[in-house]
Amino acid sequence: MIRFESDYLEGAHEQILNRLLKTNEVQTPGYGMDEFCERARGYIRKACDMENADVHFLVGGTQANTTIISSILRPHQGAVSAITGHIAGHESGAIEASGHKVLTLPSDDGKITARQVKELYDAHWNDVTHEHMVQPGLVYISHPSENGTTYSKSELEELSKVCRECGFPLFMDGARLGYGLAAKDNDLTLADIARLCDVFYIGGTKLGALFGEAVVITNDDLKKDFRYMIKQKGGLLAKGRLLGIQFETLFEDGLYFEISRHAVDLAMMIREAFVEKGYSLRYDSKTNQQFPILPNDVLSELSKNYSFSFWEKVDDTQSVVRFCTSWATKKEHVEKLIEDIKKLDR
Amino acid sequence: MIRFESDYLEGAHEQILNRLLKTNEVQTPGYGMDEFCERARGYIRKACDMENADVHFLVGGTQANTTIISSILRPHQGAVSAITGHIAGHESGAIEASGHKVLTLPSDDGKITARQVKELYDAHWNDVTHEHMVQPGLVYISHPSENGTTYSKSELEELSKVCRECGFPLFMDGARLGYGLAAKDNDLTLADIARLCDVFYIGGTKLGALFGEAVVITNDDLKKDFRYMIKQKGGLLAKGRLLGIQFETLFEDGLYFEISRHAVDLAMMIREAFVEKGYSLRYDSKTNQQFPILPNDVLSELSKNYSFSFWEKVDDTQSVVRFCTSWATKKEHVEKLIEDIKKLDR
Amino acid sequence: MIRFESDYLEGAHEQILNRLLKTNEVQTPGYGMDEFCERARGYIRKACDMENADVHFLVGGTQANTTIISSILRPHQGAVSAITGHIAGHESGAIEASGHKVLTLPSDDGKITARQVKELYDAHWNDVTHEHMVQPGLVYISHPSENGTTYSKSELEELSKVCRECGFPLFMDGARLGYGLAAKDNDLTLADIARLCDVFYIGGTKLGALFGEAVVITNDDLKKDFRYMIKQKGGLLAKGRLLGIQFETLFEDGLYFEISRHAVDLAMMIREAFVEKGYSLRYDSKTNQQFPILPNDVLSELSKNYSFSFWEKVDDTQSVVRFCTSWATKKEHVEKLIEDIKKLDR
Amino acid sequence: MIRFESDYLEGAHEQILNRLLKTNEVQTPGYGMDEFCERARGYIRKACDMENADVHFLVGGTQANTTIISSILRPHQGAVSAITGHIAGHESGAIEASGHKVLTLPSDDGKITARQVKELYDAHWNDVTHEHMVQPGLVYISHPSENGTTYSKSELEELSKVCRECGFPLFMDGARLGYGLAAKDNDLTLADIARLCDVFYIGGTKLGALFGEAVVITNDDLKKDFRYMIKQKGGLLAKGRLLGIQFETLFEDGLYFEISRHAVDLAMMIREAFVEKGYSLRYDSKTNQQFPILPNDVLSELSKNYSFSFWEKVDDTQSVVRFCTSWATKKEHVEKLIEDIKKLDR
Repeated sequence: MIRFESDYLEGAHEQILNRLLKTNEVQTPGYGMDEFCERARGYIRKACDMENADVHFLVGGTQANTTIISSILRPHQGAVSAITGHIAGHESGAIEASGHKVLTLPSDDGKITARQVKELYDAHWNDVTHEHMVQPGLVYISHPSENGTTYSKSELEELSKVCRECGFPLFMDGARLGYGLAAKDNDLTLADIARLCDVFYIGGTKLGALFGEAVVITNDDLKKDFRYMIKQKGGLLAKGRLLGIQFETLFEDGLYFEISRHAVDLAMMIREAFVEKGYSLRYDSKTNQQFPILPNDVLSELSKNYSFSFWEKVDDTQSVVRFCTSWATKKEHVEKLIEDIKKLDR
Repeated sequence: MIRFESDYLEGAHEQILNRLLKTNEVQTPGYGMDEFCERARGYIRKACDMENADVHFLVGGTQANTTIISSILRPHQGAVSAITGHIAGHESGAIEASGHKVLTLPSDDGKITARQVKELYDAHWNDVTHEHMVQPGLVYISHPSENGTTYSKSELEELSKVCRECGFPLFMDGARLGYGLAAKDNDLTLADIARLCDVFYIGGTKLGALFGEAVVITNDDLKKDFRYMIKQKGGLLAKGRLLGIQFETLFEDGLYFEISRHAVDLAMMIREAFVEKGYSLRYDSKTNQQFPILPNDVLSELSKNYSFSFWEKVDDTQSVVRFCTSWATKKEHVEKLIEDIKKLDR
Repeated sequence: MIRFESDYLEGAHEQILNRLLKTNEVQTPGYGMDEFCERARGYIRKACDMENADVHFLVGGTQANTTIISSILRPHQGAVSAITGHIAGHESGAIEASGHKVLTLPSDDGKITARQVKELYDAHWNDVTHEHMVQPGLVYISHPSENGTTYSKSELEELSKVCRECGFPLFMDGARLGYGLAAKDNDLTLADIARLCDVFYIGGTKLGALFGEAVVITNDDLKKDFRYMIKQKGGLLAKGRLLGIQFETLFEDGLYFEISRHAVDLAMMIREAFVEKGYSLRYDSKTNQQFPILPNDVLSELSKNYSFSFWEKVDDTQSVVRFCTSWATKKEHVEKLIEDIKKLDR
Repeated sequence: MIRFESDYLEGAHEQILNRLLKTNEVQTPGYGMDEFCERARGYIRKACDMENADVHFLVGGTQANTTIISSILRPHQGAVSAITGHIAGHESGAIEASGHKVLTLPSDDGKITARQVKELYDAHWNDVTHEHMVQPGLVYISHPSENGTTYSKSELEELSKVCRECGFPLFMDGARLGYGLAAKDNDLTLADIARLCDVFYIGGTKLGALFGEAVVITNDDLKKDFRYMIKQKGGLLAKGRLLGIQFETLFEDGLYFEISRHAVDLAMMIREAFVEKGYSLRYDSKTNQQFPILPNDVLSELSKNYSFSFWEKVDDTQSVVRFCTSWATKKEHVEKLIEDIKKLDR
């Protein structure tokens, strides 16, 4: 069985494991106050071209989302998100458990627009009963989205502009950020993202690390006391060095970007194979997740040798499924899959 | 200006005020442990034909909803509600502030169906990632709904049956319950509601009282420690007697039902007037709220002498508005309104 | 049975009931946007000598405490309170349910000192692990305290000064504020309190009203969006006018101060009677609550005709109990009690 | 600088790192549904002699405490803990952020007694105002405690008995559990703990793992839907295998117990050295944390070559400090420390 069902199927990039081995006996203070974290923070600030950004390392995405959102919002405020956003549907109510509603916007492809945000803002403040409603307090986007789609530079600029006009901090969930930056048509840099967002994170779990997300806070107003929040939400790793060592490895020589390109190149090969065979794609993803619409018999055939994940039923004869590549995907596995796609009856 | 914008425009029914005056100097223990509350609880149990129901008096609806829902759910569970439900949109995030998501079902008229609940249940448990989602934990309905519509006995029986099969307590928000029971086509009794729901409340604020909602818990599993929850949520009135006195007055001789009929009769007169004049109704309400769709010029004309509330825009030329009657509405005011409706150009 | 067990045994002052009757049929908008509330807010601002204070009316004390505290604090912060404070022990965990720890300071008499606050501040910030602890975020005091004691002007000035140096908003729970202002040795005015505190409330429930607390926010930084918070915490009364009418009555001609003096005068008579008979007082209260230490046989004797509340056991032979007077206490009842105290064997 | 300041100074035991390397390319499903976790659960159940226990792997201690406590308690309940408990003082309010008060019991050595629990239970239920107070809902202990002390079998049996009589689930925080089991005078087994507690966890972070705590739920009533809770609290690691691999390594051949003994043996050597030199110990710890009371000049002298942590000031001339050993402490480092202790002037 060759697995394509997610991008967290393996351990970590070997350079990371080697670094963990090499540093294993070094004694350090806990909770991220060690030299590895300090260096990693420096590399990330540099990559973001923002020397005064605050950088914090957390273990996982749900934890990062909850910590950031609950740190920013006042109790009567909610987080605006695409209906498809991870916080809206796949965190077992973590945001609500911290006291806040997720205010959802319709989205067919996982993205939201500046216009939608402005309309939501207007709708709230024009409603005479707005004090009886949850006040929108920040905007959450994911890039790439859960559907593999990405924001262009001009889209993100517009969104950022509207958010600033409305007084909404803009928060980008970058659990798969590297794969977005590696997309063929990408015109965004980390520095653009740092400039246009108020807070975002650079995902490690899905991009070469054992685990870990690097939260970057660029808006000074959001920096205060963030470590208390990390501790309260259970995210202040005792051996914080583990996060520092991993992000140091990923960012000191561009490894993060290199392995992201690897995954995206392989994903595009899979995409091409399905398209050439005449299958449609549910979303126009240029990143590491591909969503072909496949007939039931093809699904049966492919599932003999490959795992992938069910996304949604289209009708009784076909469904959308997801194939993921990652930093760890082997080219020969993808080639074998492509060969098998070519052999499909159609 | 004659006001029809809501059903809480005046003070209280005169019998209630008189009783408050008469009992004013009686000394009682606090927090609902007084003789007035005890008698009122007895009257309500009798009206519900359920001698072992627990009856608690709270000050208002948002408080009652939050106290009940947060008392029932475990942290990973949410409350299922019509998208139009009061808890979904008009309580400033009170349910989320208690840690729980409101899981919304589409609804055009404020009601939800047994089938929708069953489908939601199946969708949750059939999803392989259900542990990453909010688990539905109870079903919230309002009767009458925010749109004035009501459940028939057979609809409520079906809903109750499905809820029990799915293990969902069924909670009825009865902020306007009297007006539902007074609807011409109503075939539900308080005893039916007590039998079919696990918990519900009988609204006083909108039906003759200064304030107050009588929560009736019929399911033994939901009774434990409810008074702690009332206290924690700020709803344990020091002078609890005030609630007892009011509900005693409303329930000892059927006053509650009588004043509800008064309001509904007047609302039906308004309904008829609009219909006869050729206007459509947005919802088929047989209760004290009426939702005519009116052209802009009619709205301007009527707003000279009457207040009513804006509901939603239909298009550039017409909108839905709401006219409410209540226990306090004067027949002559309604007659004047009807006269003015008749005079409208059309 | 003559009751002295609490200060919420009766209904409301007759002027309030009369005003409720007189205004009963007036139609008003809901949620505190009516003319009565507007006038009441004006009277209170004037009594506080602070024209730009925000004034909000809530139904009860636990609700007011939770709404204020959760509106001010960020998630990692706690409320500093005397260990005896109402929020620390008698609100069923309402503050914790809003996500915040109550950081308690020892207190023998219900009060805390400027020095204690400063030491707590220093202890927190000097602890190298402070990011692992709850950060103190505001200071809560009650005046009079749960033990009937009050702050002098110089004590409150010191406390206010230290709080401002430490960046802690100072919040005064004034559930019995009138009784504090009526104390013989009181040198504080409402204007002093408004100047020295950042937010406080003027209790109505225990001082002539059926219910109601008037929250006064004097610090501009704490004013924003407070009405959303009231709604979320279940405190936005539909018929908000009821609160306006009551506070208007209490504050338009000084009724609030007059009835407070009445209660305190009677309490001092009770105090004198116990002292003259040779009994000690647990707290040096100059307000409406008196805490004599009485032998068991005296407790038995007095409880034949009077109710009072048990406070704490001193040893096997004697206990502290509480006698409360209020705006409603009848002088003849106090005289009868005093006579019976005089008759006690000793 | 040789560090003794904590027991999380290094990476992980080499067998763990080797296992991570060896399994790195194996593809597994996420979130703890992999074969490594399954095997690790089996080993732990066996070590606990309880085949039907539920075993879950979480990343860290604060996360485990919050997830367990918020899963068990209803909103009006609190967790009973020694005043020194980790949840009471060092989790930045995590328990309160989940809505619950920590009800503290005095403790000089980090432990609480069956008698204290029973008295708290009685005090709550005998108080006529108990509905206005936080209801105790579970008992939290740590073993070893924050002060290095441990419960004997008879102490734990008594505590367990009282908890069951009072209806309180007994929860043991075992962040350092191995060190407790390795204490010379220990008479408890994992099977005893599983039998006497309702839920507990076996700490990995401080005992050989990179990170990780194995939560063992033995009480059937507490098992339901625990994975939703883990996800909501941010503890469901995407690459859950990492936890499985680590605990498999620790428990398949007794490595956990072996490395715990190593640390405790070294700690006892340090203890002896201080005692022989004539210094007192603040707590009678037989585990890996030692708390000598040392004069200021000794502290200065030792801090030239060793790090240790400040615990509390005794007076102007001496303080309590903490020396920790761990699975990773080198014997030669301890020998060097002992030599230097011997050389101290006294």
